[in-house]
Amino acid sequence: MSLKQLLDPGSIAIAGVSSKAATFQVGGRAVLDHLRRHGYPHRIDIVTREPVTIDGLASVTRLADLPEVPDCLVVSVPADDIFDTVGEALRLGIRAFVVITGGFSETGPEGAARQARLAAQVRDGGAVMLGPNTTGFVNVGSRIAASSTSRISAALPEPGPVGLVVQSGALGSALMEEAVRNRIGLSHLISTGNEAVTELADCVGFLADDPATRVIALYVESMRDPDRLLAAARRAHAAGKPVALYKAGRTDAGRRAAAGHTGALIGGRGAYEAAARQLGWVDVHAIEDLLPVASYLTGTGAGATRSLGIITISGGYGGCVADALDGTVALPSPAPETVERMRGDIPPFLSTKNPVDIGGTPFRRPGGFAACLDAYADDPAFDAIAVANTPMVPPWAAEVADAVTATTRRTGKRITVVWPAEVFNAEALATMRRDGVPVFTRVDTFVAAVSGAARVAAARAAPSRLLRDGRPATPAAPAITAASLAAASEAESKRLLAARGLALPRETFVPGRDLDDVAADAARIGYPVTLKGMAAGVVHKSELGLVAVAVPNEPALHARAAAMLASAEAHRLAFEGFLVAETVQPRAEVIVGLGLDPEFGPTLTIGAGGIYTELMRDVAVRILPLDRDEIAAMIAETRIGRLLAGARGRAPLDLPALTDLVASVAALAPALGPDFAGLELNPVGVGQTGEGAWILDASVFRVEATTAIAAEIVA
Amino acid sequence: MSLKQLLDPGSIAIAGVSSKAATFQVGGRAVLDHLRRHGYPHRIDIVTREPVTIDGLASVTRLADLPEVPDCLVVSVPADDIFDTVGEALRLGIRAFVVITGGFSETGPEGAARQARLAAQVRDGGAVMLGPNTTGFVNVGSRIAASSTSRISAALPEPGPVGLVVQSGALGSALMEEAVRNRIGLSHLISTGNEAVTELADCVGFLADDPATRVIALYVESMRDPDRLLAAARRAHAAGKPVALYKAGRTDAGRRAAAGHTGALIGGRGAYEAAARQLGWVDVHAIEDLLPVASYLTGTGAGATRSLGIITISGGYGGCVADALDGTVALPSPAPETVERMRGDIPPFLSTKNPVDIGGTPFRRPGGFAACLDAYADDPAFDAIAVANTPMVPPWAAEVADAVTATTRRTGKRITVVWPAEVFNAEALATMRRDGVPVFTRVDTFVAAVSGAARVAAARAAPSRLLRDGRPATPAAPAITAASLAAASEAESKRLLAARGLALPRETFVPGRDLDDVAADAARIGYPVTLKGMAAGVVHKSELGLVAVAVPNEPALHARAAAMLASAEAHRLAFEGFLVAETVQPRAEVIVGLGLDPEFGPTLTIGAGGIYTELMRDVAVRILPLDRDEIAAMIAETRIGRLLAGARGRAPLDLPALTDLVASVAALAPALGPDFAGLELNPVGVGQTGEGAWILDASVFRVEATTAIAAEIVA
Repeated sequence: MSLKQLLDPGSIAIAGVSSKAATFQVGGRAVLDHLRRHGYPHRIDIVTREPVTIDGLASVTRLADLPEVPDCLVVSVPADDIFDTVGEALRLGIRAFVVITGGFSETGPEGAARQARLAAQVRDGGAVMLGPNTTGFVNVGSRIAASSTSRISAALPEPGPVGLVVQSGALGSALMEEAVRNRIGLSHLISTGNEAVTELADCVGFLADDPATRVIALYVESMRDPDRLLAAARRAHAAGKPVALYKAGRTDAGRRAAAGHTGALIGGRGAYEAAARQLGWVDVHAIEDLLPVASYLTGTGAGATRSLGIITISGGYGGCVADALDGTVALPSPAPETVERMRGDIPPFLSTKNPVDIGGTPFRRPGGFAACLDAYADDPAFDAIAVANTPMVPPWAAEVADAVTATTRRTGKRITVVWPAEVFNAEALATMRRDGVPVFTRVDTFVAAVSGAARVAAARAAPSRLLRDGRPATPAAPAITAASLAAASEAESKRLLAARGLALPRETFVPGRDLDDVAADAARIGYPVTLKGMAAGVVHKSELGLVAVAVPNEPALHARAAAMLASAEAHRLAFEGFLVAETVQPRAEVIVGLGLDPEFGPTLTIGAGGIYTELMRDVAVRILPLDRDEIAAMIAETRIGRLLAGARGRAPLDLPALTDLVASVAALAPALGPDFAGLELNPVGVGQTGEGAWILDASVFRVEATTAIAAEIVA
Repeated sequence: MSLKQLLDPGSIAIAGVSSKAATFQVGGRAVLDHLRRHGYPHRIDIVTREPVTIDGLASVTRLADLPEVPDCLVVSVPADDIFDTVGEALRLGIRAFVVITGGFSETGPEGAARQARLAAQVRDGGAVMLGPNTTGFVNVGSRIAASSTSRISAALPEPGPVGLVVQSGALGSALMEEAVRNRIGLSHLISTGNEAVTELADCVGFLADDPATRVIALYVESMRDPDRLLAAARRAHAAGKPVALYKAGRTDAGRRAAAGHTGALIGGRGAYEAAARQLGWVDVHAIEDLLPVASYLTGTGAGATRSLGIITISGGYGGCVADALDGTVALPSPAPETVERMRGDIPPFLSTKNPVDIGGTPFRRPGGFAACLDAYADDPAFDAIAVANTPMVPPWAAEVADAVTATTRRTGKRITVVWPAEVFNAEALATMRRDGVPVFTRVDTFVAAVSGAARVAAARAAPSRLLRDGRPATPAAPAITAASLAAASEAESKRLLAARGLALPRETFVPGRDLDDVAADAARIGYPVTLKGMAAGVVHKSELGLVAVAVPNEPALHARAAAMLASAEAHRLAFEGFLVAETVQPRAEVIVGLGLDPEFGPTLTIGAGGIYTELMRDVAVRILPLDRDEIAAMIAETRIGRLLAGARGRAPLDLPALTDLVASVAALAPALGPDFAGLELNPVGVGQTGEGAWILDASVFRVEATTAIAAEIVA
């Protein structure tokens, strides 16, 4: 069942409309008032308890009396009547519902049971349903204000390209306020309510297909079915529609029980942020920025802003913009020709760098500002231009507005305006907004928008494996709680990993003093080897000369072993034998973890390990699956990655070996079984180029005190 | 000369007023128009080239013809006439100037010379002067709009407690826009222009004494004289007036030449941020937040918000607020009695945690919301309350506004409103603002305000040594450029430090093979010692058995030395002698640096050292002087500090020894001489408790290729 009938209905009926006079209306009556106030162009019918006529519209008292079967039924009857109403509607052939009525899963277990029954009824009837407990939706372009939100009683946002889906009606109302205040055009506002049937993913899919929508904005509290959401995200990507979202809930007690250090390191949002990144979604950190950023992304079809030219009448304000950008985009200097062209309008002492501070002088002649802007916009060093203004006298402001529009049209370059003058230069700002110029009145919102555009462009240029190929459906993750979590011992964990084909450092113990046996084992392990003399009760072996690292060949091995025996003799030690091991000389320690996110399934984490794990909190996180290239990029993105690549004049370490090791860990994930809760390798030692990377310690975590995972992993 | 006459003049004359009709006016004519439009209550005279009458005000053509000597002269004559005008004014007895005329230091060396001449003229005349190249000032409470800024042609901000000083007239105009738009009350707006005579520090001092000002807000580009600014900051602190500021310029090429790694680590803003922190100043990161944050600080007299109770009609929006606070304040749960009191108005399924989600139900009865707010505000768990609302129907909004004011009055608790409904609930927001309720329409601005209040409270509770005692005037720092910077060798640097009394690990080289000499040196250094066999061309000593760490006594020393000689023999090495050293077993490495900030003088930096210096970028920075307690707090604030204190179940390291070492480094600073440019100890090794802390490597930096610093430091 397509959502088209639900969200773009050719006729609407409302069941449950109050006929009482009130200073303000709620529920079905509010929907009726809003539909009519904002000019719903098709048929509306209402169903009331007693027959009434409201503003010339006569009601019926039973659904069966409706003069025709509506495309969509808005339901605002009491919760007790819901099943009868929906049942009757289904019998009449209605297949799309907006259920405003509350009292379902939001109220507790009893309500949840009621909701399950409603969902089954709707699904069995082959219908779609927004809600229950939704405020409804607004289809701005089609003038369908099928929402009970009081905010829209005053005004609807302008029609525009941003399709907005919210998991909180009240939040949706706050965002409508932002849209109206900043004149951001919307295609839809969809409030999903309790999502008993139709959920966030369905709405994203609908907007991906909707011709009026060019960018999708989401307020997300929970992702019920990440696999469907990923699929919808791929659809939006294929349609070339960016997605911006605000994700509620930075802390989530439920996730704190995640396994090992990795869980604490990546935090409750780790997997979500990883997924957002892999999908090219723009994660907006301030709720107020969601719509301005989304709106800005509609214009990023021609590629991101990699380099920006800032032109300002105030060195101070231009500096604020440049400071806040803080490396988000390049700010190259203009070409000498550009400076040459501007010089006539700018006094010689003003900066012609970037930001270029033109001051007020260009306004002394008509067209002076336009000439400067033209010169700057023509400079091929800049992908895009930002005009950073402070409040200015209205005639100058008008000149700026006209020039921005004209230069945008002439050059095709994106020109954005950052201008905190909502009141004083209201007219100029309105002109530019009407002409489609992106206008910001806060520096940080502009920066969030530019940075979002860069992420969208990056995802388009090099889509992740997740975006390219999707992933197999992830089975529901087991519920992980601190009580249900069990860690295998180091030895057991290493055995499990070895059984899965992961390489561990090789070592053997040769009891006694037979040097030929030692030499034979060393040859099998491969030189250079590390030799340790083992004696009862000796802790500080090095101080007694009982450790030889990187012994290069058999003669050296004989000499060092003989010296150890001599030292043991001299110190009267109870000598027990030799430990012969692959020489492992880690130059850096990293942590590699597999986690299991309750929403997104298996995750991979890489970062600084050993004693620096918590101190540096230096990790890259992704959800699986991943390419080897993506793994290499993860390593490069960490700070420890710079050390591995050869920081401070040191030799580079064995990045290829580490990447291979991580790739083989990632490859384990799909088959780790239903009780798998996490795997943490810490430290993984990394040697110099050609030496290798070694799992030095490992913990495998499973849920519940069973050995199911052990059995599975060994199988 | 007090600034009172300048900034609160009982009469004003303006020299340089255009009599031309224009769509908008600039310079002296704009000042005249603004003064009259906003009701300047005292005498105004104007001096023009030709005699004119403007709106009923007759001009004179010569200063000498002024009917009386004004308190303050606004000067907007051409730059060429400036010296004559000021000279004549001084002769007439005028002692306060606002020089709007530009063409001074902002235009280059010639203008700078002109400015120096003007400054000397004004200073010699015993006068004060705002500018040149200033837009002037506004004294809001006294209705003195002595500013040419066009933004004030429309409206002045409301009178209020925030005194604003800006180093950019255009930026000041943007901030006026914010003040008007958000109804933030100002006492003054002072634009300092080129600061030839009267500078930022003077204005801060004036506002510290001004009774109308309760909080000071600054837009700062440069701090010409940090010592005077520190003194003014102490005056503001003594007067109980918080300071909020936005500091322009995150990157400053001039500072990149700072010495060693420390310079790169602390960045261009390091010393500024350190000073701001030590002074309890609130560093605002978004220019738009400067005034809202400052305004919020006026109400923090009763102490900061350590614990906050959030009450919301939208779980979603309340969550946005809680998420953004992210630990800035505690969000304790309400007491059971509080929940009990609210239960009657809140359905059982809604959250009564913190944030408490009350939904819409309390509004079903008159006074329902007020009852909930009362209950929450009475809970002793909360120092303060935040009401987080989304747009709501106007009658409910009015109820909220009334309840907030009433509960604030009744309980004396601070209640702040975060409510993105500037348009839809304009009336309710205006009511609350009029009643003095702090109202925010963005979550992040609210968070910046709460976090700023916490900093102010911390500085009041435990003022830094800088705030308590001030500091001796700092001589101007030498200009540091990459070319002028010279680093002493490790050996030379260590000698310089030793000569200054800093302890370094002891070691001696014993040439030859005489084991008695070795034993004698070991006894002098003190066991345990580290012994190394030195042989020509040998790099990997350990592998050849030539390193013995922590040798406990003389017999062991003999045995290990003999074994080394035997190994050297066996490997046919050219044995040269023994290195005997204090056994130093660093368990962690830190960096300790003394820097020299061009504005703030000597700085101290502590952080993670060794190979992790750049990777962790984990440093605490302060300007000197510092208490030992402040140094201990610096260490505790770094991530490496947690390792030192015993992270991951490890034994704590020798923090007292490290603190002593850092304190003695800090004590070096005052006497390091005029060529001193920096000192970097990296790594400083820290042993376990009782073992000590050791300078393992050191670099002393000096400016210019002279040995002056070496001479000074040894002297």
